[in-house]
Amino acid sequence: MACLLSSYIYALAYKRTNVMNSINCANDWWKWGEPQKRKSLTDYPKLKNLAETRWNRKFDERFPAPSSFPVITDDARAEKVEQLFQSKLPQIKFSSDPALRLKKSTGKSYPDLLHALTGAPFTISDGVVYPKNHEEIVAVLQLAAENKILIVPFGGGSNVVRAFDLPSQNNQPRIVLDLADMSQLIAMDAHNHTATFQCGVFGPALEKILNEKGFTLGHFPQSFEYSTLGGWIVTRSAGQESSAYGRIEDMVISLKAATPSGTVSTSVYEGDAQGINIKSLFYGSEGMLGVVTEATVRIHPLPENKKWLVAVFPSFNAGVEVLRELVQQEIFPSVVRFSDEHETFFLSLLSHETPGMLGKIKSSVAKWVLKMKKMEQPALMMIRFDGDDDEGTVKKAIAGRLMRKHKGFDVGESIGKKWETSRFGLPYLRDDLMEREIFVDTMETVVPWNKLNELRTTLLAKLQASDAFHRETGILLAHVSHVYTSCASIYFTVITARNKENGYEQWKEIKTLVTDVITQQGGAVSHHHSVGTDHQKWYLQKTDALTKAILKSVKQTVDPNNILNPGKLFDEQN
Amino acid sequence: MACLLSSYIYALAYKRTNVMNSINCANDWWKWGEPQKRKSLTDYPKLKNLAETRWNRKFDERFPAPSSFPVITDDARAEKVEQLFQSKLPQIKFSSDPALRLKKSTGKSYPDLLHALTGAPFTISDGVVYPKNHEEIVAVLQLAAENKILIVPFGGGSNVVRAFDLPSQNNQPRIVLDLADMSQLIAMDAHNHTATFQCGVFGPALEKILNEKGFTLGHFPQSFEYSTLGGWIVTRSAGQESSAYGRIEDMVISLKAATPSGTVSTSVYEGDAQGINIKSLFYGSEGMLGVVTEATVRIHPLPENKKWLVAVFPSFNAGVEVLRELVQQEIFPSVVRFSDEHETFFLSLLSHETPGMLGKIKSSVAKWVLKMKKMEQPALMMIRFDGDDDEGTVKKAIAGRLMRKHKGFDVGESIGKKWETSRFGLPYLRDDLMEREIFVDTMETVVPWNKLNELRTTLLAKLQASDAFHRETGILLAHVSHVYTSCASIYFTVITARNKENGYEQWKEIKTLVTDVITQQGGAVSHHHSVGTDHQKWYLQKTDALTKAILKSVKQTVDPNNILNPGKLFDEQN
Repeated sequence: MACLLSSYIYALAYKRTNVMNSINCANDWWKWGEPQKRKSLTDYPKLKNLAETRWNRKFDERFPAPSSFPVITDDARAEKVEQLFQSKLPQIKFSSDPALRLKKSTGKSYPDLLHALTGAPFTISDGVVYPKNHEEIVAVLQLAAENKILIVPFGGGSNVVRAFDLPSQNNQPRIVLDLADMSQLIAMDAHNHTATFQCGVFGPALEKILNEKGFTLGHFPQSFEYSTLGGWIVTRSAGQESSAYGRIEDMVISLKAATPSGTVSTSVYEGDAQGINIKSLFYGSEGMLGVVTEATVRIHPLPENKKWLVAVFPSFNAGVEVLRELVQQEIFPSVVRFSDEHETFFLSLLSHETPGMLGKIKSSVAKWVLKMKKMEQPALMMIRFDGDDDEGTVKKAIAGRLMRKHKGFDVGESIGKKWETSRFGLPYLRDDLMEREIFVDTMETVVPWNKLNELRTTLLAKLQASDAFHRETGILLAHVSHVYTSCASIYFTVITARNKENGYEQWKEIKTLVTDVITQQGGAVSHHHSVGTDHQKWYLQKTDALTKAILKSVKQTVDPNNILNPGKLFDEQN
Repeated sequence: MACLLSSYIYALAYKRTNVMNSINCANDWWKWGEPQKRKSLTDYPKLKNLAETRWNRKFDERFPAPSSFPVITDDARAEKVEQLFQSKLPQIKFSSDPALRLKKSTGKSYPDLLHALTGAPFTISDGVVYPKNHEEIVAVLQLAAENKILIVPFGGGSNVVRAFDLPSQNNQPRIVLDLADMSQLIAMDAHNHTATFQCGVFGPALEKILNEKGFTLGHFPQSFEYSTLGGWIVTRSAGQESSAYGRIEDMVISLKAATPSGTVSTSVYEGDAQGINIKSLFYGSEGMLGVVTEATVRIHPLPENKKWLVAVFPSFNAGVEVLRELVQQEIFPSVVRFSDEHETFFLSLLSHETPGMLGKIKSSVAKWVLKMKKMEQPALMMIRFDGDDDEGTVKKAIAGRLMRKHKGFDVGESIGKKWETSRFGLPYLRDDLMEREIFVDTMETVVPWNKLNELRTTLLAKLQASDAFHRETGILLAHVSHVYTSCASIYFTVITARNKENGYEQWKEIKTLVTDVITQQGGAVSHHHSVGTDHQKWYLQKTDALTKAILKSVKQTVDPNNILNPGKLFDEQN
C-alpha cells in the first residue's frame, strides 16, 4: 500500500517523454509475501555464525534496495495505450499507475530480486488491465491484436524463472493482463466431485471455498499463497502433495482459454476417446498460446486422517531406495520430503531459535546423535499418508518396514506436523539473505531414480570447482519432494557469498553450471519451476525441430500477431 | 492362411484394368480372432429360444459371407506404386497380394462386417508395406509424401468405428503401412520400472515379455489379443483394468513418432515443467499426425494378490452409488464390471451350456433368486483389488461395507475369477449372430455419475420407439466398466433382428439414434472406441472451431501433403 500511495504522488511529477524513468516506491515492494511474516538471518545466530566463518564476512549489515527504481518505458506510448483502452473498453479497469506497472513487471527469480537490490532498470508495461471474466479477456485480446499491443498475463507474480518479463529490445506497446479480478467459483458439483473456477483465484481463496464444503484440491506448491490456478496450469506446477493428488495437469478435467483468435473449450470428461484433447497444449504454455480463463478440477474430500512417518537415514541413497521401493509397489504418500545430509544439517541450524518444527528437528537431532552413534550425517525423511484410517495404517506399516530395511530410524511424527504448519515460511528468509549479500537460489529437476545421487554428487563437485560458488565455501542443499514410478524430483538450494560486483554474472555462471550438469546427468530442464527466460536456452536445446515447428504453427493460429508473452519457449527472440 | 493362398492363385487372373474387381478369398477372413475359438448361437439354446420368440424367426440357418469380394481399386495405379516402392525402398517388404490388401483395408465395425456378409464393395489399398523400425517408417513416409501417396497405418485391425477405412472418393495412390514387423522390445529398465517397445507389438506379446521379468503393463482392452501398443495410443484406449492402472495415456511416459516432416521425440520424464509436452497430440490422433513408432511405458510388478468382490444389487442405481462412493474416497479397483439388470439376465442365458464363469453366474442367480425374493431383476457387480495383501484386504472391506449399505448381496469371488479366464471370448459370438441375421453392435460413452442412469433409461425408451430397433423386441444391455472421480463409462450392447434389406440403413438409424441420445444426455462421443468414420459427425459437432483450426495447423506442419489417413477427425472429407 505504501508503494501504491507513494506512486500516486509520484505520478504527478512523472516525466512523460523519457525512455528511462525512475519510480519512487517503497523499497520492499519486490519481496516475498506479507511484511509481517518476514524472517531475518539475525533470528538464526548459528546460521549467521556459520556464514560469517565460511565467507569471512560480517552479516550484520543489510543493504536494502533503493527507494527509486529506474525503468525502461515510453510515456507517450503508454498514454496512447491508456487512451485506446479507455475509449474502446471503458468497462474494463485500466491502471497507468507507474508503481503498479513496475510491480507487475517482475517475478521472484534471482535476477528479478537483484534488479531491485542493485538498482538495475526494469522494463515495464504501458498499463495494467483487470478483466473480470472470460468474455472481457477475449475483448482485451482482440483489441490488443488489432493494435499490435503485447500482452503479458499476470497471476500471482511468484514465478522464479522470469516467465513473464517484458522484452526490453521490443518497442511495441505492451500491457499486463492482471487476473486479480478473476477469482470466482463458477460451479461446484458435490455429487460428481468437480469445481469450476475462474483462473485468477489464488491458492488460499480456492482452498477456503472448497474446504467450506468439505473438499480440497490438494495442490500446495511452495508458492501456494501467492500463485493462481491459471499460473499453476501454464507453468505445469507440482504441489507438495503431488505424489498422491497429482500434478496440476492431473487435476484439471477441462479448461477454457481465450486467445486473439477466439476461445478454446476442451472436453469435459476425465477420460474419453473423442479425438485429440488439446488442453495439454496449454499446460506449460506460459501465456504464449492464450489466457487460461476457467478450469474445472477434480476435488477430493478433506482427508479425515493424516499419518506422518518421519525417520533419519545413514545415507541419501538409503532413503532414495525406500521411496523408490514404496512407489514402485503403488503406494504413493501425499507429502514426501527427503532432505540430504547437508539440508538436514542446515535445518538443524535453523532450529535453535524458533520453537515448533525447527526446535523439534533440533531435539530430534540431539536424540539420534546420541542414540545412533554411527549416523554422523543423517538425512531426514518425512512422508504423510492421507485418507481412510485403516488404509493409512496399512500403508504406514509398509513404509515403516521399508524404512527399517534401509536402516532408517523413526524419530516420531511431530516434526512432520510442525513442518506442515510452517511450510510456506521459508521463502521469506531468502530476501533477508540477499540484502545481506548472501547468494541464495533454488534450482530443481526430475531425474530417473538411478541417477538421483550421481547428479547430486556431480553437481556438488562441479560447484566446488567454481569461483562463482566460492569453491568449497559454497553450500549445496538437496531434497527429494515429488516421486513417480520411474523418477523423482530433486530440489537444490545454492547458497554462497554474493559478489558485490557483477552479481548478475555470478548468478549466470552458477545457473549455467547447475543447468548444464542437470541436463548432462539426465535431468529435465525443470520439474516444476517452468522454462521462462532463465531456462530457455536449455529448453531449446532439448526440444526437437519438429516439435518447435508444431508449436509455432499452433502459435500462428491462436496468436497470428505474436502479441502473447513474446520471446518465451519456442519464440527465440532472447 | 487359406485366404492368403487362394489370393495368390487368384492374383494370376486378376483383371488389372478394372476399377471394380472381385477377390476370391476364404469367406471368414473378416471374422474376429482365431477360428478355433469361435462361438455359435447354437451353443446357447436359451439365448436362441429367446431370440426366436422375440423376433418370430428361426435362427438355425447361417448366411455366411460369399467367397468372392468386390473391391474398388485401380490396377494400373497399384502396379505403379509397387514399382516405385520396389525401386526406391527395396529393403522394405512390399506386398501387392490382393487378398492381403483386402484384409488390411477393413476393421471390425458393424458396417465392415456387413460389407463382407452382403457382398458390398471394399475400397482397398494399392499395396501393403512392412517397415521394421522407425527409420524405415520415416523413409516410407518421405517417399509417400514426395509421390502424394496416401498412407493408412495398420496395427491389429480390430478398431470398431472404421478408423482406418480408405477414402472411396479419392483417386490418389494409397498404401497400408502395416506395423506387424515392429514388435520388438527396445529397452527394459527394471530399476526405474520402464520399458520401451516398438509400437506394432500386440497385447499378448507385450505382456509375455514383461511377465517373464515379473512385470505387467496392466492394459487389457477387450481387443487385447488383436490390438497393438500404437493402436492403443492413437485411439486413446482404456483397458479393463484402467481404473487402477490408468488409460493408455496414463501409461505412456514418452513416445517417438514418424511424420512426413520428420521425427518427434517427447520428454522422457513422468512429470516435468519443461514447456509444452506434445505427446498428447498423438493420443487419439488416429494416424493422421504421424505413425507412433516407439513408446516408453511405466511398468508394474505382477500383482501378488488379486481379490475379487462380486455382488448383486436390487437396482442399477444402487450399484452406481457404490462405485461412485468408492472412487470418490480414492479407492480404485483394478477391474470394475457392473452389468445392469438386462445384461445380468443376458449373461444368465449364456450360462447353462458353458461350464465355468457363466455356469457360476447361473447357479448364483438361482441362489439369490431363492435367497433374496425381492431382487427380481438383479444387477451383477464384479470388482477386483490388486497388490499388497494387507492393503487389498482393507480396500475390499471398505468396498464390502459400501455394498451392504446399498443392499448389495455378496455372491462369492468365483464368478470374478471365471470372468477373468474367459474375458476375451465374447466378441467371437458376434460374428455368428450376424451370420444368422441378428443385429449386434456395441456403443459406449463416458458420462458424469449423476447422468448414468438417466442416459440408460432414456436410450432404452428412444430405441423402443424405433422401427430399426424393432421397437420393444430389441434388447439393450449396459455395463459400467471404467470409473473416474467425476464420471464413469457406460457400454451398451444393442441386439435386434437384422433387416434382410437395407442392413446398412438399419445400422445407420440405430447408430445415429444412440449417439444422438448419448451426446444430448451429456455423454462423450466415445469413451474408448475412438472417432473413426462412425463418430466423425458428432466429433465435429462437439469440437469448437478454434480447436479444429489448431489441429489443422498441426496437420499442415507434420503432413503438408495430407497423405496420412485422410478424411478422419477434423479433415472433413466425409
